[in-house]
Amino acid sequence: MRFSKRMDMIKPSAIRSVQKRIAATENVISFAAGLPDPALFPLDDLEKATSKMIREKGELAFQYGLTKGYDPMIDKLVERMRNKEKIDASAANIILTTGSQQGLALCAMMFLDEGDVVVAENPSYLGGINACRPYGVSFIGVDTDDEGMDTKELDKVLAENPSVKMLYVIPNFQNPTGKAWSLQRRKDFMEVINKYDVIVVEDNPYGEIRFKGDFVPSLKSMDTQGKVVYLGSFSKILAPGLRIAWICADPEVVKEAELIKEGWDLQCNQFVQVQAVQYMEDFDLEAHIAEIQQLYMKKCDLMLEMMDKEFPESVTYTRPEGGMFIWVVLPENVDADVLLDTALEHGVAYIPGEPFFANGGPKNTIRMNFTTVSEDQIKKGIKILGDVLKTVC
Amino acid sequence: MRFSKRMDMIKPSAIRSVQKRIAATENVISFAAGLPDPALFPLDDLEKATSKMIREKGELAFQYGLTKGYDPMIDKLVERMRNKEKIDASAANIILTTGSQQGLALCAMMFLDEGDVVVAENPSYLGGINACRPYGVSFIGVDTDDEGMDTKELDKVLAENPSVKMLYVIPNFQNPTGKAWSLQRRKDFMEVINKYDVIVVEDNPYGEIRFKGDFVPSLKSMDTQGKVVYLGSFSKILAPGLRIAWICADPEVVKEAELIKEGWDLQCNQFVQVQAVQYMEDFDLEAHIAEIQQLYMKKCDLMLEMMDKEFPESVTYTRPEGGMFIWVVLPENVDADVLLDTALEHGVAYIPGEPFFANGGPKNTIRMNFTTVSEDQIKKGIKILGDVLKTVC
Repeated sequence: MRFSKRMDMIKPSAIRSVQKRIAATENVISFAAGLPDPALFPLDDLEKATSKMIREKGELAFQYGLTKGYDPMIDKLVERMRNKEKIDASAANIILTTGSQQGLALCAMMFLDEGDVVVAENPSYLGGINACRPYGVSFIGVDTDDEGMDTKELDKVLAENPSVKMLYVIPNFQNPTGKAWSLQRRKDFMEVINKYDVIVVEDNPYGEIRFKGDFVPSLKSMDTQGKVVYLGSFSKILAPGLRIAWICADPEVVKEAELIKEGWDLQCNQFVQVQAVQYMEDFDLEAHIAEIQQLYMKKCDLMLEMMDKEFPESVTYTRPEGGMFIWVVLPENVDADVLLDTALEHGVAYIPGEPFFANGGPKNTIRMNFTTVSEDQIKKGIKILGDVLKTVC
Repeated sequence: MRFSKRMDMIKPSAIRSVQKRIAATENVISFAAGLPDPALFPLDDLEKATSKMIREKGELAFQYGLTKGYDPMIDKLVERMRNKEKIDASAANIILTTGSQQGLALCAMMFLDEGDVVVAENPSYLGGINACRPYGVSFIGVDTDDEGMDTKELDKVLAENPSVKMLYVIPNFQNPTGKAWSLQRRKDFMEVINKYDVIVVEDNPYGEIRFKGDFVPSLKSMDTQGKVVYLGSFSKILAPGLRIAWICADPEVVKEAELIKEGWDLQCNQFVQVQAVQYMEDFDLEAHIAEIQQLYMKKCDLMLEMMDKEFPESVTYTRPEGGMFIWVVLPENVDADVLLDTALEHGVAYIPGEPFFANGGPKNTIRMNFTTVSEDQIKKGIKILGDVLKTVC
């Protein structure tokens, strides 16, 4: 079979292969997931909204729709951008996407030519990096500290690499580290990028899952030059199975995205857009998000408390104020991928952190998820993992 | 904004711009649509299946799922391929796509390099052609007669153009002509393409909407070399708003498609897959398809009867045995695009046929849709269009 040359550049997600390794092991307490807690899906309310919607708007919901998205959904998103993110948006700034992954893929297709360079946080979300791979680009990782991306290093990287075309960042409770950027760091970042002819893709699936600390405005809300492409999603605040997400960007960017999307899949699923609008009209999404925040905070706090108690002192970890992940750093000589075999033997799983570095990275890091495990599993699992860590740390 | 170079190659659908022109005119009987009749959507059954599914499988339906698709849906499709299309498929041959448009886009990304040539029927479905445009390819159109693609011309084209990489064909009730290929022509076609190192994309959204004549097997069912990529869809047999479609192809092709899809959107909408499986388990999809066939036959027959009565003798048209479209050929001196203004003034709309030719084509053709208009609209509208045609033909 003669596939196109670009197929050589596309890599499978290294996470999914680890997940297969984990799935093959029985009776494992898994901190390896990246999923919301399904017990939180508001099934009763969704059932009511869906039935009503099929009765009242069925012919519309099951029919073809517009490439840009269902108008009332776009209106809801404009409102959401204004009220929740302080982004001054109108309908011309919005296009629906099949998950934020499609937003990433549209940006990659729209902006990247062979030889371009993409800058990402070190570490970063694998899916964002993989979305760029088919276009023959290379990557530069810029380190982050507790405040966010190192803007001095970024300035240096941009000055030295005129081929940088796009920056991919996750300023809120990043997958995999759970870190959120401070307000000052966001301002510094915008100041730096405004000096260069680059596009910033701001991926914000976790921003509304802040369970501690104060709201910090998005990069897009500080964007005076139309350089930031903001990606929002219902996956973590309602349900990922709906695949409802959106781009909020300059109208020119939205128009190009619409052109690509027409050729890629004509439009997003119309049914779930009408369904989600009905749910938002009849029920209180904000109250539901508050519930998510409460439960995730409880789980995160419990996990940190257990780690404080059970992990060796040579092991450090982030203390997230939101999101779904904790990032663990082991002593430098420990290979987290090798250790995973021991962990699986003892009945616990995690994701080794190395694949999250665009150009490879240290082997002594771990991504821990706290949303899909029960409190009981957290207690038992962290105790087991602590014992495993003590054998090598 | 510095977009990628490939953005210069992407064109908006010429149909959508005509549709905007039509939408701007009030009180028009429109034969310009390409939509199924929404009155046929089985709303009561879908509501029952959806409610039950949310209650019983809600946590699964609203959660992330697999890139390849929901396993029970894949099983249903394997069964469908075997029973309806005589294609000997297994789960390894199937991947779900967001409409067949995504199937087309995946094939384009997977197979096409700059300089490659795509062969399509003359005329062909615009969306298929547009899906290939971003990759710097050129097109060759091969004419069709009442039996299907001219295989002698095809053989010549393939012999003379070693850069042909992909053929895009719609052998059943093609959009825009409504033509279906004969069994003999399909055999001849397979014999020709088997001599060359090419991929065939067989797009079959309308095959199950056969309301006259005998079933004719798909190209994929005659494929002995794994060269045919078959695209199936629920858009015309259930509801397009669900965006449920699939690729049935060689496992190697499915694997590559899965790799791209992971970067493009992670997975199709999980909710509607679980929903559609529930509907198929609790209700009779085949009986529903029979209903669609009956109504579309009635509308098609009525339209042809009215055309026989009202159109000038110099105008010819196809007599489809299925699908959603009739193709009308006007005398050579008539420009259907110019005539559309007159038609709109008199209150009827159609799609001029020229944009369906990959490299431009004759200006005297028209695509007529018979599925979204009522019988009353068909009677009135064809009378009006006949009168308009009489002024120029």
